[in-house]
Amino acid sequence: MQTERTTPSRLAKRAYYDEATIHPILDEALFCTVSYVVDGQPMAIPTAYARKGDKLYIHGSVGSHFIRTIENGAPVCITVMLADGLVLAKSAFHHSVNYRSVVVFANAEKVTDEDERMEALALITDHLIPGRWDDLRPTTASEMRKTTVLAFSLAEASAKLRTGGPNDDPEDEELPTWAGVVPLKTVRETPIPKEGDMAIPLPDYLL
Amino acid sequence: MQTERTTPSRLAKRAYYDEATIHPILDEALFCTVSYVVDGQPMAIPTAYARKGDKLYIHGSVGSHFIRTIENGAPVCITVMLADGLVLAKSAFHHSVNYRSVVVFANAEKVTDEDERMEALALITDHLIPGRWDDLRPTTASEMRKTTVLAFSLAEASAKLRTGGPNDDPEDEELPTWAGVVPLKTVRETPIPKEGDMAIPLPDYLL
Repeated sequence: MQTERTTPSRLAKRAYYDEATIHPILDEALFCTVSYVVDGQPMAIPTAYARKGDKLYIHGSVGSHFIRTIENGAPVCITVMLADGLVLAKSAFHHSVNYRSVVVFANAEKVTDEDERMEALALITDHLIPGRWDDLRPTTASEMRKTTVLAFSLAEASAKLRTGGPNDDPEDEELPTWAGVVPLKTVRETPIPKEGDMAIPLPDYLL
Repeated sequence: MQTERTTPSRLAKRAYYDEATIHPILDEALFCTVSYVVDGQPMAIPTAYARKGDKLYIHGSVGSHFIRTIENGAPVCITVMLADGLVLAKSAFHHSVNYRSVVVFANAEKVTDEDERMEALALITDHLIPGRWDDLRPTTASEMRKTTVLAFSLAEASAKLRTGGPNDDPEDEELPTWAGVVPLKTVRETPIPKEGDMAIPLPDYLL
């Protein structure tokens, strides 16, 4: 949703407010940064998350200072960034980055319904490793008691992105400097089994 | 430096305050997230940066709302995270992430010395693409006038990291569930030349 605080002061043409742009970015990135304020001081924590519909979930230990600071509805700013490429122009000035980012302004809602809490943990696990949750023993009541689950509305989310090659000044176009894009990608490498566990075959969802 | 706000409330054994841990993380990561506060509301922007000694530099347009909000010394929290691997335990509860992160609490100092400003832009360019700066035409006075360079002291920086395999509960050790680490890596793919520029050979620093 476009609001005053989700409208960028510059390059507003790069901003999007539709779910069709925002949701895939949130679903592809693995980690977000949650920024919050303590006595006027900005603080920020990178963490795992998952999206369902127009909600974003994070979890943490009930004893975490971070979780306890925001669980009662303090305002947060959640950012996600996928860096897709380095954009090399003819001049340093026009160097840029191809990226897809999302910014969410929201207030934490502490999830209390046990089914929703369990579902959120499944979503977070499967967001990082699709297919993992169903392969695991059930989470115990004791483990659930040690875990806080927070939900954030995506109502005030916006995406910003840049794609394509460099935008050079006309007078630089003929320079013999190499220009273009160096694509960046996050890859998953070959899984490394736990020591002593070599006999357990790699599950299909990790192939 | 260990101060009250750089001391984590949990897992303090994962925290480090020495340059030998902090600097390589800042040098390897490509982007940071700068969190700041506007009227009590947390805001955050992902951006490029570079480190020199115990200073971190960012740059932006002189017209940027973000830059203008923090350039006069407002407190910021800068976070950097390298995600090294997904840690798959026998239980959902003990799933984790191998990461190396840095948190910096600082106040922006606007760099006014023209030599330092130019050097900071060279450092930021070469941080993303080592060797690039010397291949570019000189930055013009007009381009410099449009650019703000901010410096942040690393005096109040801390690193947090996790390495290694899953830490399972003793009673889960014999479960037949696959456990271990899925390494994550950011890779640079084959550079894509700008349209119409195919005749310019790829420079050595991009090979």
